[in-house]
Amino acid sequence: MKKMSFLGKLGVISLICPTLLFASSDIQTNLNIVWLGIAGAMVMFMQVGFIALESGFTRGKNAVNVASKGILDFAVGAILYFSIGYAFMFGEGGFIGTTNFFLTDYISSGDSWGIMVWFFQVMFAGAAATIVSGAVAERVKLSGYVVACALIAGFIYPIFGHWAWSGEGWLAAMNFHDFAGSTVIHSLGGWLALAGAIVVGPRFGKFGKDGKVNAIPGHNIPLATLGTFILWFGWYGFNGGSTLLGDGSIAIVLLNTTLGGAAGALSAMIYSVFKQNKLVDLGMTLNGALAGLVSVTAGADVLHPGFSILIGLVAGILVSVSVPFFDKIGVDDPVGAVSVHGVNGAWGTIAVGLFTAEYSLGTQLIGSVTVFVYAFGIGMIMFKLIDKMMGIRVTANEELMGLDLAEHGYSAYPEFPSHSEVSLFK
Amino acid sequence: MKKMSFLGKLGVISLICPTLLFASSDIQTNLNIVWLGIAGAMVMFMQVGFIALESGFTRGKNAVNVASKGILDFAVGAILYFSIGYAFMFGEGGFIGTTNFFLTDYISSGDSWGIMVWFFQVMFAGAAATIVSGAVAERVKLSGYVVACALIAGFIYPIFGHWAWSGEGWLAAMNFHDFAGSTVIHSLGGWLALAGAIVVGPRFGKFGKDGKVNAIPGHNIPLATLGTFILWFGWYGFNGGSTLLGDGSIAIVLLNTTLGGAAGALSAMIYSVFKQNKLVDLGMTLNGALAGLVSVTAGADVLHPGFSILIGLVAGILVSVSVPFFDKIGVDDPVGAVSVHGVNGAWGTIAVGLFTAEYSLGTQLIGSVTVFVYAFGIGMIMFKLIDKMMGIRVTANEELMGLDLAEHGYSAYPEFPSHSEVSLFK
Amino acid sequence: MKKMSFLGKLGVISLICPTLLFASSDIQTNLNIVWLGIAGAMVMFMQVGFIALESGFTRGKNAVNVASKGILDFAVGAILYFSIGYAFMFGEGGFIGTTNFFLTDYISSGDSWGIMVWFFQVMFAGAAATIVSGAVAERVKLSGYVVACALIAGFIYPIFGHWAWSGEGWLAAMNFHDFAGSTVIHSLGGWLALAGAIVVGPRFGKFGKDGKVNAIPGHNIPLATLGTFILWFGWYGFNGGSTLLGDGSIAIVLLNTTLGGAAGALSAMIYSVFKQNKLVDLGMTLNGALAGLVSVTAGADVLHPGFSILIGLVAGILVSVSVPFFDKIGVDDPVGAVSVHGVNGAWGTIAVGLFTAEYSLGTQLIGSVTVFVYAFGIGMIMFKLIDKMMGIRVTANEELMGLDLAEHGYSAYPEFPSHSEVSLFK
Repeated sequence: MKKMSFLGKLGVISLICPTLLFASSDIQTNLNIVWLGIAGAMVMFMQVGFIALESGFTRGKNAVNVASKGILDFAVGAILYFSIGYAFMFGEGGFIGTTNFFLTDYISSGDSWGIMVWFFQVMFAGAAATIVSGAVAERVKLSGYVVACALIAGFIYPIFGHWAWSGEGWLAAMNFHDFAGSTVIHSLGGWLALAGAIVVGPRFGKFGKDGKVNAIPGHNIPLATLGTFILWFGWYGFNGGSTLLGDGSIAIVLLNTTLGGAAGALSAMIYSVFKQNKLVDLGMTLNGALAGLVSVTAGADVLHPGFSILIGLVAGILVSVSVPFFDKIGVDDPVGAVSVHGVNGAWGTIAVGLFTAEYSLGTQLIGSVTVFVYAFGIGMIMFKLIDKMMGIRVTANEELMGLDLAEHGYSAYPEFPSHSEVSLFK
Repeated sequence: MKKMSFLGKLGVISLICPTLLFASSDIQTNLNIVWLGIAGAMVMFMQVGFIALESGFTRGKNAVNVASKGILDFAVGAILYFSIGYAFMFGEGGFIGTTNFFLTDYISSGDSWGIMVWFFQVMFAGAAATIVSGAVAERVKLSGYVVACALIAGFIYPIFGHWAWSGEGWLAAMNFHDFAGSTVIHSLGGWLALAGAIVVGPRFGKFGKDGKVNAIPGHNIPLATLGTFILWFGWYGFNGGSTLLGDGSIAIVLLNTTLGGAAGALSAMIYSVFKQNKLVDLGMTLNGALAGLVSVTAGADVLHPGFSILIGLVAGILVSVSVPFFDKIGVDDPVGAVSVHGVNGAWGTIAVGLFTAEYSLGTQLIGSVTVFVYAFGIGMIMFKLIDKMMGIRVTANEELMGLDLAEHGYSAYPEFPSHSEVSLFK
Repeated sequence: MKKMSFLGKLGVISLICPTLLFASSDIQTNLNIVWLGIAGAMVMFMQVGFIALESGFTRGKNAVNVASKGILDFAVGAILYFSIGYAFMFGEGGFIGTTNFFLTDYISSGDSWGIMVWFFQVMFAGAAATIVSGAVAERVKLSGYVVACALIAGFIYPIFGHWAWSGEGWLAAMNFHDFAGSTVIHSLGGWLALAGAIVVGPRFGKFGKDGKVNAIPGHNIPLATLGTFILWFGWYGFNGGSTLLGDGSIAIVLLNTTLGGAAGALSAMIYSVFKQNKLVDLGMTLNGALAGLVSVTAGADVLHPGFSILIGLVAGILVSVSVPFFDKIGVDDPVGAVSVHGVNGAWGTIAVGLFTAEYSLGTQLIGSVTVFVYAFGIGMIMFKLIDKMMGIRVTANEELMGLDLAEHGYSAYPEFPSHSEVSLFK
């Protein structure tokens, strides 16, 4: 998120022909607004990318529940980020913003640009919250999940966002660089997801008594594939819009985004071929693409494209070793959200320190460590409190039955006889 | 639909530096064109949102038929709106436009702006026609449906559109305000859908002999969820493009659209929890989101965002009570199209009169009543005539077999053994 | 692909007010960049349109494999088109470009416009490669397919692209007109697909011993429908972005694209009704829409809209007779890729010679014949070599089992009991 530097460029011209500046900069502002509107809509579309991915990678008996989480976290997040979240994040204030609640400053002054920045940012808040969804899928209580999302979009995300992205943030002041949110969105969401997965506990049947890890296959791989591509498509808005400028600055961003995603898919695929006796793991390839996209998000504006490929290649491997690692330590993360967003958000942020001259590795590390301590710590407290106050997990009976029948009273595919009850014990 | 007011703003400048006006206003026009092109493509994408929603909320034995209706109504609508519909709607003339058939005025003069307005508007015509589809699903004859769509896109929609949105329309002259079509698209489509559902009659098994309403569950809820989000994504083009300007005027529109949809989802969800003994009704939550989006469409450009939330909250409740109401009076509307588009289109239009100072409640009521009388009246006549002339409903046998086998000769999911024949009697 | 002609228009102004030119043309360049970025993202989204279409039109036992081909060909294609493909295509050189490998010229000079043209073009390279996928589906070896895609995106497509679209190409010098790629993308991809289908051979069970053609129905028609609409949506970026200008030139392109697709759907549908005793063939209607879109792609910028309808109508018939023709001659093309892209790419290219005054039928024929000889010839050699060196087809056993279990070790829908093994013999 940068100031509109083109205004400076036009400054010289304005001395010569003052009327020109007005007209031309007006149109450039309009172009910025249009671009941000389109980019924001693309990021909004990612919401259903997350739903499709999570739904496809989990069991059919929970598909209504996955979709419900997805629409509710966005709806709750949007209202809260409008009311208070944006004020906490971009309002004036040192530790936390305290002005512009309900966007009153923008609305009263008719500040279209400010309103459009909100529109773009609210989609980011929605993404941060929804990353948690996959990690707690198939056993979290809907009510508890929605409360967590409200807290994330209303408080947890905005406060950290204030530190990293607002004019008065202490991380921003240190020249911490997180262009489009490898840390602010993805690591934050990923570490919150880790806390959620730990507090909620593993799904029934995931880990055998002898510690054996049981695979619980997703019920609809084409749906998960569609979700991944929707996310990739939306990522062009996510990263491209983050220049806040409709100008040439987006070109390198889209190039780096493409290369990072492609490299992540490739290395994850190749890794799976070596690991699995020549079988190609599509699920891990998709996660590799997402890991690559997450990892180039921090530096997509400043990285040399060669390094984007390198970062993406590493991301694809990282996610491939991270997923079994969390399995091994007993964390059940059905879609690999912690590995994709948490681990690779950190990797991408650190990589900016490694592969650019302008940013310091130390500062990038400080940001990455801070977001872990902050998000994982607050996440543990939040999910434990929710668990105490209203319960965070459904009963064993409800879990076996499936959340669709338990929490919604109907099934996602009432016509297709399903083996989901059986598949649990496979 | 507004004139490009920025031209006025640039007028003063042109006196000082005439060459500037030419170049700058040219670029602003280009920006408007680009924005309208993207917005139009987004609205086109809504076509498959409607298909996915309807398909997911109905039975698998009719899924090929739902998709066929969706592609055919768009194809027929596009050709007819090009040939005659746009001329009737935006051509010169009092009651009805009578110039610019086949866009000859635009094409002969190379009027790119005019052509792009057509591109945006043809997608609206497609949406108006396709709203009917859901209400008559699972028992309408494909041939009859396509004829109805041709009449809607070629005549019924353009004529009302002329009254409300063209320079010479009588509703427009009364200062009737329907920014992006709560009345012109959604209510019109919804009341036509009501007529269609009445004439076609309820599905076999929907109403018991004792008047009991039987739920007929949809076969693929993830598909319906995807459809809803595609519609929401497209709505940013639908509403955002309706300023016809690529400038700051779209910011408040996108803000209001987001809040309306979010509020509608929330209130419908909460309502379902209270009504249903704590079960969360995803179907109604999705319809609540759509109801909220429909209801803020009339005033998205002029509403204070606080009122958008209020309007959306009411919309979510309205759709929740309207769906069982139409069930109770014996109207079988499989996807709730009448409640989402008809009822909430009216609510949104009236709300502009309630919550803004610039527009009169009386005029807004006149528009809402007019569209009901017009669309429902013509719809009843049209569907009855189609029924007389070619039959509007498949035979009972075809309905039981499913329209896919009856009208297309094959099934949507030939590999999955289905319970659809059985589910009818559940 | 045109040069930015608006620069000329602004030339006169620059003499009067030099500062103006800088500012205004800067903003127009920014608008071009933004439009190309959005259009490129839309074309990228087509990648999953192809996957969904192919997956839906084939059997569920190969759905993981279809998705794997789709993500891998894009990932490999993106890296190769960045490294060498773009240099071969748009670098300086007569027969083939030999400069700007790894985009070094653009990156070292910070040429945002060049980088964005790459971003748009890489999506075209991905599309050209992925067209092949559908024709070899359900029996091609993943490794062999990926090698073919690498060669297509890295060499085969760029070389022909250089001839037709670069400043030094010999077809371009002949005034050959292929606006957005009916020949360069679609015919090229389609004829490569034909070679692939021939070399790989028909699926087990497709042709009976008596020469009887057996239909092998697709497993998920809603998914194929969604894929078609994603492709159509993306086509607005594909064709619209091909002006490389964010200005009025896109209007006629979007109009022609819409009419071509609509007309193709309609004529294919009507043809199926007459052929099939009143049954409406949705699959062919969807292919008709795509055929219409392919066929107007060559001339979308110069055709009169009336001719777009005519060309689309012919395309819908062409695809309807072409699909059974290839069946009859023993070419098994599961999704009709050769007919949609190869045949209708040629038709659209020739139609530019028939229906415009500016372009010669002879030159258009030369381009169409050249691409056939080139792509089919190289395709035959390539696929045969791949077959020799690493094998292009899975074993009969693997094919019967399904590629998902054979090449990936898991199933796309593990919960739904499938009849796919049985359906082969229906």
